[in-house]
Amino acid sequence: MTKIVECVPNFSEGRREEVVGAIADAARRIEGVRVLDVEMDASHNRAVVTLVGGPENVKQAAFACASKAVELIDLNKHTGEHPRVGAVDVIPFVPISEVEMKDCVELAMSLGQEIAEKLGVPVYLYEEAATRPDRKNLAKVRRGQFEGLREEIKTNPERAPDFGPSELHPTAGAVVVGAREPLIAYNINLGTGDVSIAKSIAKAVREKDGGLKHVKALGFETDKEDVVQVSMNLVNYKETPIFVVFDAVRSHADKHGVPVVGSEIIGLVPQDALVDTAEYYLKIQDFSKSQILEYKLRE
Amino acid sequence: MTKIVECVPNFSEGRREEVVGAIADAARRIEGVRVLDVEMDASHNRAVVTLVGGPENVKQAAFACASKAVELIDLNKHTGEHPRVGAVDVIPFVPISEVEMKDCVELAMSLGQEIAEKLGVPVYLYEEAATRPDRKNLAKVRRGQFEGLREEIKTNPERAPDFGPSELHPTAGAVVVGAREPLIAYNINLGTGDVSIAKSIAKAVREKDGGLKHVKALGFETDKEDVVQVSMNLVNYKETPIFVVFDAVRSHADKHGVPVVGSEIIGLVPQDALVDTAEYYLKIQDFSKSQILEYKLRE
Repeated sequence: MTKIVECVPNFSEGRREEVVGAIADAARRIEGVRVLDVEMDASHNRAVVTLVGGPENVKQAAFACASKAVELIDLNKHTGEHPRVGAVDVIPFVPISEVEMKDCVELAMSLGQEIAEKLGVPVYLYEEAATRPDRKNLAKVRRGQFEGLREEIKTNPERAPDFGPSELHPTAGAVVVGAREPLIAYNINLGTGDVSIAKSIAKAVREKDGGLKHVKALGFETDKEDVVQVSMNLVNYKETPIFVVFDAVRSHADKHGVPVVGSEIIGLVPQDALVDTAEYYLKIQDFSKSQILEYKLRE
Repeated sequence: MTKIVECVPNFSEGRREEVVGAIADAARRIEGVRVLDVEMDASHNRAVVTLVGGPENVKQAAFACASKAVELIDLNKHTGEHPRVGAVDVIPFVPISEVEMKDCVELAMSLGQEIAEKLGVPVYLYEEAATRPDRKNLAKVRRGQFEGLREEIKTNPERAPDFGPSELHPTAGAVVVGAREPLIAYNINLGTGDVSIAKSIAKAVREKDGGLKHVKALGFETDKEDVVQVSMNLVNYKETPIFVVFDAVRSHADKHGVPVVGSEIIGLVPQDALVDTAEYYLKIQDFSKSQILEYKLRE
């Protein structure tokens, strides 16, 4: 069976293509790793690279990227809309196949240590890899950003990193390394022109307002006059499966007398999320993933 | 993207383990092929071998098996419950991944020719590979079995093979080679002790009695007193998807006032069948299989 880990490092550079290219190339040189996607955003001045492969290979590739970014990015010259504390800002590991969350936490800790030791950059652990509850939330870890943390780290022991020196790297800042579940971008379309219904359902289902755990949701208009959308991020499809979200939105829509006319998955989705959905609706009992022919072939 | 074909040759030997072992080993020696399963049935005196791999590799493995079976099995000494015309009785090719039915038809024709030429055994093409409508049905091709066909082939031009000599091989008989869709063995459990309801629903949904195309169904009791089962073979899940079958059985069960308490997939299922099911129930629009992370990785 093939172990697959995803890693989605974020870099504080979204304008100079040659820099982002060099970072992605550093990953491409590692055997057993594929660079699935490279996205640059000029206004955020940020790039997101998606790596997949075997756990150790992906860790190696993440280190290679980080090393290159520390070399090429100077945060003192960085401006952009997106908050950041580091040249390599965030490195989450994501379990995809035949890998547990605890394996990804171990990868995060091991990579964090390596970055601190070899690159001299302080490392904070976040989300599932967090060493204390207040560091689960990335926004809290990044509080004050590069410029603020640079001062605070010297005086406030609460801001001490998990690994590495107690001061920021002069040009590369700090790195936040962690582990999280795969994120599914999932939108449900409702057959009405009334965006207030989409907004009301989004509010009803999102965690922030007491809805479903691990669901972020907003209501939007679409380019079709008679269709509005509940646009969601499912940040832990194992604990709150996609079918639970679909059924919840449909129930709310029913209550509003509005039909669900369709849904969309944006970007990638782990196979498990779809297989679990089929199992649920077909009420399949005692199913083992090794019954999936393609799965058995990979064994 | 990896092309995967399945091949499920049936051999007229279900008692001598060393013979079946030698046949399976012949396939194992072919690179790029995996022997997923070997099943022997003593009362049927028949073995079923499941091969998967790349199209050409699987064809080569099927020929290696056939060659070994022709060498080791003498149909004149064969008795068993299962109808048969050959030492190698049937060889169906099944498209699994990135392969079309027409590719499997070509494999069947090419293997048929090779068997006829190199082994001197007449070959009939059946199902999707059939060259005439009356040969689609395996039972019709096998009419009279080895002993009957041995005589009839000499005098009745209707029984002339597609490839090879116009008389049966003295010990190996004939081979029926073809192509078909993957078969899904799917059972739905109903929360009642009344087996007549399972039988009535089986009759309502099966093709033979005017129900759903490509569905074979029977009603059974189970080992639980308050559960009966509609036991089905879905012989073309692309044309009659598993969710259509589930919904049909559920509707009939509703009409009887009986709940669907669960379902089971027996053995292997192609990934597509489950992904299509998730798409259907979640009403997903514009989905591409390349959005499945594991799929993208295999590209």
